[in-house]
Parts: sequence; structure tokens; C-alpha cells
Amino acid sequence: MENLIQETLLANLDLPKHQLVIFTWGNVSTINRAKGLVAIKPSGIPYDQLEARHIVVVDLKGKVVSGTYRPSIDTATHLEIYRRFSSVSGIAHTYSRWATIWAQSGLDIPVLGTTHADYFYGDIPCTRKLTADETSSEYELNTGKVIAETFENRKINPATVPGVLVASRGPFSWGGSAAEAVYHAVVLEECAMMAYHTRMLRADLPEIDQNLQDRHYQRRHGKTAYYGQKRG
Amino acid sequence: MENLIQETLLANLDLPKHQLVIFTWGNVSTINRAKGLVAIKPSGIPYDQLEARHIVVVDLKGKVVSGTYRPSIDTATHLEIYRRFSSVSGIAHTYSRWATIWAQSGLDIPVLGTTHADYFYGDIPCTRKLTADETSSEYELNTGKVIAETFENRKINPATVPGVLVASRGPFSWGGSAAEAVYHAVVLEECAMMAYHTRMLRADLPEIDQNLQDRHYQRRHGKTAYYGQKRG
Amino acid sequence: MENLIQETLLANLDLPKHQLVIFTWGNVSTINRAKGLVAIKPSGIPYDQLEARHIVVVDLKGKVVSGTYRPSIDTATHLEIYRRFSSVSGIAHTYSRWATIWAQSGLDIPVLGTTHADYFYGDIPCTRKLTADETSSEYELNTGKVIAETFENRKINPATVPGVLVASRGPFSWGGSAAEAVYHAVVLEECAMMAYHTRMLRADLPEIDQNLQDRHYQRRHGKTAYYGQKRG
Amino acid sequence: MENLIQETLLANLDLPKHQLVIFTWGNVSTINRAKGLVAIKPSGIPYDQLEARHIVVVDLKGKVVSGTYRPSIDTATHLEIYRRFSSVSGIAHTYSRWATIWAQSGLDIPVLGTTHADYFYGDIPCTRKLTADETSSEYELNTGKVIAETFENRKINPATVPGVLVASRGPFSWGGSAAEAVYHAVVLEECAMMAYHTRMLRADLPEIDQNLQDRHYQRRHGKTAYYGQKRG
Repeated sequence: MENLIQETLLANLDLPKHQLVIFTWGNVSTINRAKGLVAIKPSGIPYDQLEARHIVVVDLKGKVVSGTYRPSIDTATHLEIYRRFSSVSGIAHTYSRWATIWAQSGLDIPVLGTTHADYFYGDIPCTRKLTADETSSEYELNTGKVIAETFENRKINPATVPGVLVASRGPFSWGGSAAEAVYHAVVLEECAMMAYHTRMLRADLPEIDQNLQDRHYQRRHGKTAYYGQKRG
Repeated sequence: MENLIQETLLANLDLPKHQLVIFTWGNVSTINRAKGLVAIKPSGIPYDQLEARHIVVVDLKGKVVSGTYRPSIDTATHLEIYRRFSSVSGIAHTYSRWATIWAQSGLDIPVLGTTHADYFYGDIPCTRKLTADETSSEYELNTGKVIAETFENRKINPATVPGVLVASRGPFSWGGSAAEAVYHAVVLEECAMMAYHTRMLRADLPEIDQNLQDRHYQRRHGKTAYYGQKRG
Repeated sequence: MENLIQETLLANLDLPKHQLVIFTWGNVSTINRAKGLVAIKPSGIPYDQLEARHIVVVDLKGKVVSGTYRPSIDTATHLEIYRRFSSVSGIAHTYSRWATIWAQSGLDIPVLGTTHADYFYGDIPCTRKLTADETSSEYELNTGKVIAETFENRKINPATVPGVLVASRGPFSWGGSAAEAVYHAVVLEECAMMAYHTRMLRADLPEIDQNLQDRHYQRRHGKTAYYGQKRG
Repeated sequence: MENLIQETLLANLDLPKHQLVIFTWGNVSTINRAKGLVAIKPSGIPYDQLEARHIVVVDLKGKVVSGTYRPSIDTATHLEIYRRFSSVSGIAHTYSRWATIWAQSGLDIPVLGTTHADYFYGDIPCTRKLTADETSSEYELNTGKVIAETFENRKINPATVPGVLVASRGPFSWGGSAAEAVYHAVVLEECAMMAYHTRMLRADLPEIDQNLQDRHYQRRHGKTAYYGQKRG
């Protein structure tokens, strides 16, 4: 459990370092699937005061297992993502500016360049808006549900598109660890910034060709990937 | 009085730290309502030279009670806000870029995302322009008056919308302390930046649903707020 | 002469500090009118290597009086400005991004807010383009001439509008000292950034009222100015 | 060979310093033409961990001559540029934001100001898209080929236009050394940022006059160049 807490702490501290959040905004969590435990940022603690003793551990039903602080207000959203997306081991929620601008606009981020295709195998989807009922009760849980619904209805694989925009709100991203979730949050922000300005310069620009998307995604993540160093 | 001066000094020093001002621009004040005293930045002193001995204390009529420096040129604006908005204990005036762009444009900042709704319960209003008469005499007092008029005429509660844009000029924000006024100035700038680009991407985008505004504002500030840690 | 060199050195070093230039770009000069001497940055020396021994002193005809380095390639422009604008004691030439964008666009920066009016009493003019003849011979001298022509033909006072955009190129600014010239370069960049985005948000927005311009400029620079501390 | 490796290391480390890349993105190489050897960044190593021992040396056919790491995934692109452009001794590939936005848009960067003309003697061209066949096999080699084709077909001299945009992807730049390649990457980014906003403000603005381009390029790089200090 100490490793889980430490990994979660460090990933949270990376958010302000990468300028993805200010003050107490955003949150990162990590899951230990074997034990069914999730470590997450406490609610409302500023990053510059955050220490291991603040990190809260909950089970998959949201019951606090360790820690004396209240968990993040968005804990129910994280838990629903973990329950629905079995490939996910870490989740980051930020308010990075350009991703939030796309989320506020209610638009998917289209694949307009290879930087996007290097990490996200297709558009980064924007959810539908929550209904009044979904907003009024169990809002945070319903936010997780609408994220899962978006991927299921549109047959998007969360393992190859590791992020989403929640309409009117902002981005969530994920990965094989909390660190990777934050890494994807940084990439999402870069892609969001560049896609925005590409769209403003050429409103009618089509997405890049599927074969170029394939090549860039596969040379990093495919079975015959040749990016980076051999492991081991 | 020393506490009042110290709190005002620290809040002023936060303005350049958050990149809301350059050189000598902007100013923060704090009121002690029991004593009817207001501490405020001196006029024209650069932030990197600012010390406690420069802070000026005035009464609610603007008479200097303590300090050997001239108070901020905008002191009469601050005093009018304190007189008209009884819930306000600290005020910040900045020239943050995106808030100033909206002020120059003469437009309210619409609620286009939940980041806005987390802190401002409705549009951040832009005042009408001052008349030639209002500009020619007692300009700074009249600036305070037009701010108060904006909230009164439009039935906006300054306790739940803690900021305003003065047309052609820039933002003022406030809160329960000088530190909170600066905090709101930072949030206002984030919202202004994101609302600007959301509008450019989707000119016709409506504001977010009222129930979503309610949920986000209330989960932080309502009677049953559940954001953050329990106090005490 | 040592003071002149030292003042010029420090003002040049302020350019990268305020992010107005990169590498070797831009230059600042100072004039001692009593002696008819101008100290200026050497050509092509990076700011992070710049020392007092590199600063070149020339007379008003451009003859090197002190120093072993070549003076800035734009020296003839500076000298023409000193000859034509008797109120100017320091000049800064930068490639700050937003001012350069307006210069490339060939447009005056309109007075769209009080931040502009606090320092520039009217539009910041953009020169006409140089003719092919003016570009082919004595280009740098002719750049100075077209700057002076712009102010003379349009009856603009360089003492109250301390800066200009050279069409297709970038900004020059000036003041009562080299430090003030750099200060005005920073303000020009802020105004340029905010005017640009104000124009994009509201293409048809008129300039601010003349009485508001008067009030803001005069409260800082007029005979009855009341901004800042009393001198002496 | 040690010099080649050291020069390549330092130039790679300059990429994050100038904010042209994040994480492991981008790469710089240097050629020793006498020996037919090219030193290049290893694939997938983060800049903050990069040391001389990671740098890989290959011959012009891509065979590893020195080093235990895999060379950059884009090595074949670099080698093709070296084979086709005999004036080039160093190459930088970055994902700087504004240059990438132009590349994603598939547009040349037009000469809209003298900052551009100081370093790039004409438009910075954008390649055509690669065909499906070119993308599916030998993608990195074909990227180099389409860069060379662009300059040959359009009769652009890579010695006077030291950079290119690869459509849908991002910029490559080059020069007489790895350091100069990075220098040109920085200038390209500045020009890209300013050209973008100039175009948004004035969509129909023509490029600057040829004689102004000539003057600015020649005063730095021509036979009678007079910028900078005399050498030796």
C-alpha cells in the first residue's frame, strides 16, 4: 500500500510541474487491481502542501480503507472508469487550458497531425452532456458512466485512446500507471493546442490519412513497434 | 493594524507571482470593518521594492490614517466597493491579459464551462462605459459607483459573483480576504482565457445548463457543499 | 562616458529579461546630448555574453569614438531618430512577438483600452513601407527617416507617443532614458497583445472615448498628474 | 569521433532548453563528411537523462558504427537529407508548436516580415503528403525523399532556406552545424508564430517586397554582409 500511495503522490505532484493545474484543481489516482484498492488525491489540498500522509485509499465501492482525509470529490468518477475499463491502472483529471477549451466547446479533438497519432489512435472523444437528472444526483458517478458510454457506443478502445473530454468541463486521461496517465494528459494538452490553431487556420482541413495514423501509432505501440530501446 | 498591513502586503506581492501584473500596475486592499480602516498598496511603487512600510491605511472617507506614502490612485474605487458591498473584505485590481481583453471588448464573460461555475455563479459582468462627466470628475469614485450599479441593476450578488470587468479597462475581484480576492483574480484570468478561445472556436455556443452551474457552484459553496476537508 | 556605457549595457540586458528578444536580436542606445555622443549595442553579440567593453560609442554622424567593436547594424536608424526627435534620450529596438505581428500587418495599434492610454497618447503608428530605392541604399538611415516622417506628417508628438511600428519589420520605442525606452517596449508589447485579441473578438470595436484617453494619460503625465509618489 | 558525439549531445540538449520539444520528442544529428559518419540521438531516451554514452554513430547507409543504443527512429530521414543536400552539416527535428501547426495545415510559411527574411530567403516550404505506399514501407526514408523532392522541384536552395515543414507532421531544420540547425529551429518557430497571427489579422496580406527580402537576407548572409563582427 505504501508503493501505491507513493506512486499516486508523485504523479499528483507532476500535474502542477507540467502546468496542467493550479491551486487544488485536478487529481490523479492509481489502482492495485489485485487488492481492489485505489489511492487518490485528497479533496481541496493545494499541491504545494501535498504529502504522502494526505493520500486516501479507497476500495472499489468508495469506502475509505486508509487515510484521515476526504478523498477527491471526483473519486466516484475514477472508480467507475476503473470498473468499466479493465486496461486502466492510473487516471489523471486536469484543467489544462486547451483540452478544457475543446471540452467546453463540446467537440472531439480530430487527428490533425502525427503527434496526436503517436499516442491516440483516433479522435479524442467528447462526451455528450449529462442530463438534468444525471447532474442532480450522483453527478460524479454519472460522469464516469457517460465516459464509459462514450467509448462503448462509439466502439472506441480506451487502451488505444487513453483520454476523453467531458463536455462543458475538461479532460480525463489514463494509462498503465499514474505516471502514464499524467504523461497522456501532457500529450493531450499539446495535441489540443495544436489542433485548435490548425482548425482556426484551415477550418475545412480533413483528418490525416488512416495509413499515416496507422504507421505512427504502430511504430510506437504495435506488435512490430520499433520506437525506443529494447527492454531488458 | 499590523496584521491588516501584513495581509495587504502579502496579497499585493502575490499579483506578480501569479503574473497578473507587471511593474507598478494593479493594487490590492483589505478592510477591517470593525475599525473602518482599509490598507492598500501605495501609488507607483514597483512590486519588487514593496515593503510593509509602504502600505497606506485610510479610513472609509479616504483620509490617510497611517503611512507616509500616497495611497493607490484607485483608492476611491476600492472604498466605494467596500461601502456598497458589505460582504467584501478584500479587493484586487489587476491587468491580467485575458480579463483585460474581455473588458476592452465591453463584454460579459459567459459561463462556458464548469471551471467558471466552480467560483462565479453566473456571468462575470462588464460595466457600462462611464459618461464624459463621470470620467472628467471624481473618475475613480465613479468607477466604484458604476461597479455597484452594475450589480444592483442586474440583481447580481457580489458574494457569489466575486469579480467584475470595468469596460475599456480591466478586472476587479474581491472576497472574504485580500488573499481570496487575489485567488479570484487568478480564476477570473483562467476563465477569461478559456472562454475567449471557446467563443472563437464556437461563436454560437450557449452557456452551460443552469443545473450544471448549480451543481458545480453548490458542491463547493452551498449549504451542503462537499468539496475540500471538514474544518476544525 | 562610462555612465553612458553602463546605462546602455544595463538597458540592453533588460531586453532578454523581459522576453522581448532572443539571441542577438534588437538593440538599445543612449544619447548624451551635451556631448553629442551615442552609446549602442555592438552588432551580433549575444546578450548572454554582452559586457561593458562591447558597447560602442559613436558621434551623431556615426563615427566610432570609443570601442573596438562594430556598432549595431541599426545605428543609422537610432541616430536619425535622435536628430529628428529632440525629446528622446534612449531608444530600444526589439522583436517582441505581438508588436511585430502588428508591424508585419502594417497596421497602427488602436487605443482599445486604458492600459494603452496610460502610456501612449493616441494610436501607435505604423510607418509606410519603404520604397525600393529607400531599401536599396542607406536602408537603415531611411528607416529612421520614415519613422520621423510618420510622426511629422500625422502631427504625432514623439514625447507623448513613445513608440512606432516599422512596417513589415517590428517596433522601436524611446523615452527620457534607455531604461524608459525598454519600459515602453514592454508596455507596447502588452498593448499589442491585448489589442490584437480584442480586435479578433470584436472586429468593429471603436477606440475608447477621447475623454477617457485624456483622463488616463493626464493622471500620469499631465500638469496635474496625481499618479505615483511626490518627487524629492 | 568524440567531438562529433559531444557536439551532437549539446545540440540535442538545447532542444528542451529552447522549449522546442518535451519528453523524448525530436532529435538532432551531426555529420562528419570526411569520414562519412553521422552522430544522432538515440530513440526514446528522455532529454533529462541524455548523456554522451547514449549518442549513436552510424555511417551513411545507417549501419551503427559506435554506441550500444538504437539510433533515432528518424535516422533514415536525416541520412537522406545529408545525401541529397551537400551543404548541410547538422539537422534538427522538433515538435515546436507553431511550426507544427503550419505543418499540420499543409501550408508554406510565407515571408510576412523581415525576421523571416533575415534567415530564410523565401517561403519555408511544406512538403506534399506521402502516398499510402510511401507511408507503408520505408516511411522514414521516404520522408527524407519527399523533403529533397520539394526543394528540387521548386528550385529552392537548402543552403538559403534552412528548414522545411513535413505535411501533417512537423519541422526539420539544418545548417552548417548541429548548433546552427537548432538555432534555425528556434527562428523557424518565431517566424511560424508571428506569420500565423499576421495571417489571422490580415488574411489577404501579400508577402513582403522582394527587395526588402533581398536587403535583409543579404545584409546578414550576402557577399557584402555587414551584420555582426569581422571574423578573425
